[in-house]
Amino acid sequence: MKSALKIAIAGLGTVGGGTLQLLERQAETIALRAGRRIVVGAVSARDRRRDRGVNLSAVRWYDDPVTMAADPEIDILVELIGGSSGVALDVIDTALAHKKHVVTANKALMAEHGTRLAEQAEAAGVTLAFEAAVAGGIPIIKTLRESLAGNRLSRVYGILNGTCNYILTTMRESGREFGEVLGEAQKLGYAEADPSFDIDGVDAAHKLAILASVAFGRPVDLAGVYTEGIRHISRLDIDFAEELGYRIKLLGIARLTDHGLEQRVHPCMVKRGTPIAAVEGVFNAVVAEGDFVGRVVLEGRGAGAFPTASSVASDLVDIAAGRQVAPFGVPAAGLAATPGAAMEYHEGAYYIRLMVVDQPGVIADIAAALRDERVSMEAMIQRGRAPGEAVPIVLTTHGSVEAAMRRALDRIAALDSVLESPRMIRIEDF
Amino acid sequence: MKSALKIAIAGLGTVGGGTLQLLERQAETIALRAGRRIVVGAVSARDRRRDRGVNLSAVRWYDDPVTMAADPEIDILVELIGGSSGVALDVIDTALAHKKHVVTANKALMAEHGTRLAEQAEAAGVTLAFEAAVAGGIPIIKTLRESLAGNRLSRVYGILNGTCNYILTTMRESGREFGEVLGEAQKLGYAEADPSFDIDGVDAAHKLAILASVAFGRPVDLAGVYTEGIRHISRLDIDFAEELGYRIKLLGIARLTDHGLEQRVHPCMVKRGTPIAAVEGVFNAVVAEGDFVGRVVLEGRGAGAFPTASSVASDLVDIAAGRQVAPFGVPAAGLAATPGAAMEYHEGAYYIRLMVVDQPGVIADIAAALRDERVSMEAMIQRGRAPGEAVPIVLTTHGSVEAAMRRALDRIAALDSVLESPRMIRIEDF
Repeated sequence: MKSALKIAIAGLGTVGGGTLQLLERQAETIALRAGRRIVVGAVSARDRRRDRGVNLSAVRWYDDPVTMAADPEIDILVELIGGSSGVALDVIDTALAHKKHVVTANKALMAEHGTRLAEQAEAAGVTLAFEAAVAGGIPIIKTLRESLAGNRLSRVYGILNGTCNYILTTMRESGREFGEVLGEAQKLGYAEADPSFDIDGVDAAHKLAILASVAFGRPVDLAGVYTEGIRHISRLDIDFAEELGYRIKLLGIARLTDHGLEQRVHPCMVKRGTPIAAVEGVFNAVVAEGDFVGRVVLEGRGAGAFPTASSVASDLVDIAAGRQVAPFGVPAAGLAATPGAAMEYHEGAYYIRLMVVDQPGVIADIAAALRDERVSMEAMIQRGRAPGEAVPIVLTTHGSVEAAMRRALDRIAALDSVLESPRMIRIEDF
Repeated sequence: MKSALKIAIAGLGTVGGGTLQLLERQAETIALRAGRRIVVGAVSARDRRRDRGVNLSAVRWYDDPVTMAADPEIDILVELIGGSSGVALDVIDTALAHKKHVVTANKALMAEHGTRLAEQAEAAGVTLAFEAAVAGGIPIIKTLRESLAGNRLSRVYGILNGTCNYILTTMRESGREFGEVLGEAQKLGYAEADPSFDIDGVDAAHKLAILASVAFGRPVDLAGVYTEGIRHISRLDIDFAEELGYRIKLLGIARLTDHGLEQRVHPCMVKRGTPIAAVEGVFNAVVAEGDFVGRVVLEGRGAGAFPTASSVASDLVDIAAGRQVAPFGVPAAGLAATPGAAMEYHEGAYYIRLMVVDQPGVIADIAAALRDERVSMEAMIQRGRAPGEAVPIVLTTHGSVEAAMRRALDRIAALDSVLESPRMIRIEDF
């Protein structure tokens, strides 16, 4: 057997602790699979005294992870600090500069600096691996990059944020409103004290940008991801979705269109009975559609210490076994500059909910606005009757262009009989 | 870029044709991902004249695939002939003897000779790859072998035969009986003229034996797979399953128990609402449960020219890129001889359907037989009343030992008031 591979772990929070435990518990099986032992040679974290469930007495402890990243004893730097810049980035830059392999679970950092770091890793002849950065324990990066290598993908989409999926699932099951369920999720530890990163879709956008880069072989383009969160989803919309045969999910979608690559994160209505609609609670799922493989669905735990550690370990074993692959599947110079498609060009069906005064002529005004913008209505539901009072009206459209839909909505919003801002949720066809 | 890698394809049937088309259509993207071109240098098939959708005029044609396997110009032999012995085995043996990498889609052959061939490949320093042998386009071999390398798996199970899943799905949806739906499946090309390989569970058993070997790092043990097909499933059982909240699926299950590794293929009752219950028609799905990753589900097309070609291509790209891995994830010498658990030790819940004469005392006799064997009843349904005539009775049990269940069934079958052989379907808890 070859000599042991020495790794350094920067950051011993939830995922770092899980990784330490995994490497200890599975040391034998990993050595067998990798052809050599993987040994933790150094660690760096803020709090030395916290119990992480493993004995670290023989491990070198660094106060400064950047110094650790330059340690000549170390073969692989595992970055589990988090944050898109600052220390995490310094650590990775230093490790690559010293020709060390890097394994990271840092989606924000990969979404913002992934292309540059991939170039650096390639120039240094080392691996930059990030299976743990997207969808926790689901091996979606390796699947897209290696298992589907013989395919041209047309669409990759998924439930990429467990917090949002938990909130939407619980709203539907419990009949409660967004704010209340969010508060409960925070108490249960499923949502952060400042939840905006999750519920505004930022976290999902980071993951989607990385997925799109691997799936379509183009530089990471976080700025090109249209992002909308779930704050505006109400019980009423969830009930209407059920009535219409849909579930509401926050999806990240990357899709090749005639206008270029669409990248978008927003709530979607998806047909009940599709695999993605059945993914509930904190689970994540990713679907890839390829010209040869057809549709492949991967589902599993999208977060948590142990599932994420499983992905970190997978990257470590590949490196230890000498299996090299370009970070995004193709050499950095081969990343094609497929243009991004602006959201105005998006074509799809729409769900629109309006609160209107129940009086003659309202529907005619709304229908006229849609007709003028060439948006074709598919169905309309008016729930209840209350002459002169506010009632909800729900419309669904046939495939329409986003820009036209938005113009129509502006006109509708300006009608006297329309009382609140129209709510719009895109219907995704799978 | 490195020099092109030359492959030879033995067998140009459905999968062979699909592979040729894939390699032609995706030549550029594959070259980019693999770091070198993959070129078809030689082929061998029975019929030279059939149109396979690609131009083979520049390709060397062999009448004898075994001679082709020794061609010094060839780097990889792709075996797509099929059959567990005969020519297919000769081809692979010859290729390995000449130190050529082998890619195969042949599940029967891998299930019967996988361990020996892995040893041969290892001794020759070449790769033996078989992603296409299990579950078509679903990348389950690579996932178990590489992505879940940091896990101890406790159970791997799945819908591994699309023909059976199509028949069971259609029986439920159409309300028709097994024989009729099988006939239709044959007309549609979803079932062979001689369907026994599929419907008796043999095909699923091959795939399960391979999966179990990769998942649990033990030699392939086809003889250790308990196998039962779907011929005895009737409409009545499907209706009762619905009533009890279950779906009937033919599953392959490998599970670590106190008695060793269970390997079994049989119809199962699975709770509606579980991911596996939702997999319908010709789709396949595989679920892996690991101590760190938790539950991971992969779903996709389990057969067909293009999905299977996608898996062949994935293996080819890995080889071309120089990414080596032991066929079963660990060196042949490291395959542990985990003992197999005999089916008599299986513990689980059971669904039992009886046709009985509707008369006083029948239930008491049945209950006594179960009690004597310490099988604990969970529920009982008697559908309808017809004094003195035949009525179905359905029982479900709590967790019981298979041997005891069988003894109880033998006693029940011998009762005068029990008219047909009892039907038994195992209930699987996910």
